[in-house]
Amino acid sequence: MTLVLGGARSGKSAHAEALVETSPAPWTYLATAQAWDDEMRERIALHRARRGEGWVTRDVPTELAAAIREVRGPVLVDCLTLWLTNLMLGGADLAAASEDLASACADAAGPLVLVSNEVGLGIVPDNALARAFRDAAGRLHQRLAREADRVVFLVAGLPMVVKPAGGHA
Amino acid sequence: MTLVLGGARSGKSAHAEALVETSPAPWTYLATAQAWDDEMRERIALHRARRGEGWVTRDVPTELAAAIREVRGPVLVDCLTLWLTNLMLGGADLAAASEDLASACADAAGPLVLVSNEVGLGIVPDNALARAFRDAAGRLHQRLAREADRVVFLVAGLPMVVKPAGGHA
Amino acid sequence: MTLVLGGARSGKSAHAEALVETSPAPWTYLATAQAWDDEMRERIALHRARRGEGWVTRDVPTELAAAIREVRGPVLVDCLTLWLTNLMLGGADLAAASEDLASACADAAGPLVLVSNEVGLGIVPDNALARAFRDAAGRLHQRLAREADRVVFLVAGLPMVVKPAGGHA
Repeated sequence: MTLVLGGARSGKSAHAEALVETSPAPWTYLATAQAWDDEMRERIALHRARRGEGWVTRDVPTELAAAIREVRGPVLVDCLTLWLTNLMLGGADLAAASEDLASACADAAGPLVLVSNEVGLGIVPDNALARAFRDAAGRLHQRLAREADRVVFLVAGLPMVVKPAGGHA
Repeated sequence: MTLVLGGARSGKSAHAEALVETSPAPWTYLATAQAWDDEMRERIALHRARRGEGWVTRDVPTELAAAIREVRGPVLVDCLTLWLTNLMLGGADLAAASEDLASACADAAGPLVLVSNEVGLGIVPDNALARAFRDAAGRLHQRLAREADRVVFLVAGLPMVVKPAGGHA
Repeated sequence: MTLVLGGARSGKSAHAEALVETSPAPWTYLATAQAWDDEMRERIALHRARRGEGWVTRDVPTELAAAIREVRGPVLVDCLTLWLTNLMLGGADLAAASEDLASACADAAGPLVLVSNEVGLGIVPDNALARAFRDAAGRLHQRLAREADRVVFLVAGLPMVVKPAGGHA
């Protein structure tokens, strides 16, 4: 299990796809994005176009833990930030959902790569919802990082190793 | 002296507490947070609840340099971002206060761990006060990092070493 | 070629200047800042004052690729974030300009150091222009990082190596 963190347009998805493709196909892409507007629709189409043969895409806006428990073979989850957004908009219990996700990840049968945006390194947002969101994202990242074999932080498309596989941070 | 930087909910406080607890108790916790509202009151209560026996908490919203000069034994300062906020709201000279703090840190008798939020990695804020704040925070971090024996940057609860103890960055 | 990334007031410019000054003078400073307001004028004056003898400053708000192709000797570009802002305000094609810049960098005769702000690690901005800007900045950083011999990420004035010279990331 690898957790891929980084900022906007830091190359997280491309890095994560390349990681998953080191295992034999078919690869399952668990997509959490929902096409609310044209900007999002375009972004989703671009991501799909980049992934080639061998990928099976499944839309999973909220039921991520269940999907990870079901799928066999290598899995890419892209991305946790949108999953958390979907849950928050739906009024879900974020702490419970995060715990359930971590437990599904721990049980995953095959290689699993999770992508998420680091959103907590700017000025404190004015907006209480945005503050609650970045708190939930930070807690989720900490929880999954404990479970993960490897954590990388992407800067300009390049991975900085935060938790090395088989090593100690 | 260790400087612990990182984003919101990146595990800075827990990491810093564990560092201080490697020295023999009693440990002094210099708390800069002021309970302006319920969100803050809850956050402070959660932090206090996590710290166990052996900790002495002292509220120091602004007079941090004096407190560091007085205390004997291991000290945790949590956090510099709120200290800077308190000073800014009080109209203090941030450059002078930062210099005074750095000099108090250099003179500290025992182990000293300082926690601060990295806030300069988002889009430039619209708000002039927020820009001034992140400039002051960035300058303070640079100043203290020069003084520190060790600087770590927390990502998802895991420390990335920015300045290794006894080494060169 | 070195790409120096980091947040606001993270010590990027001072680090980049020191890098360039390891080569023999004269050093060319390609300044992209435009003095729109007093805050900016003051910032520019401070930066100029810090640079000593041996520096030749040239204002290049937008025609950066051409300037890099012309100059002989060591060059510092400070900073790409403002260059991108200037281009965006002028309605330029950011993808084409980024590609042209990367190609000019690849052809640079002498040592070249480029400074840019990491802006993608905060909460998603409300503002569509800000989102487009951080996407363009992220893509530019990825493109230049592929070309660069070395990429560093500054935290509190200290460089974390993202891409080591002559090594693999």
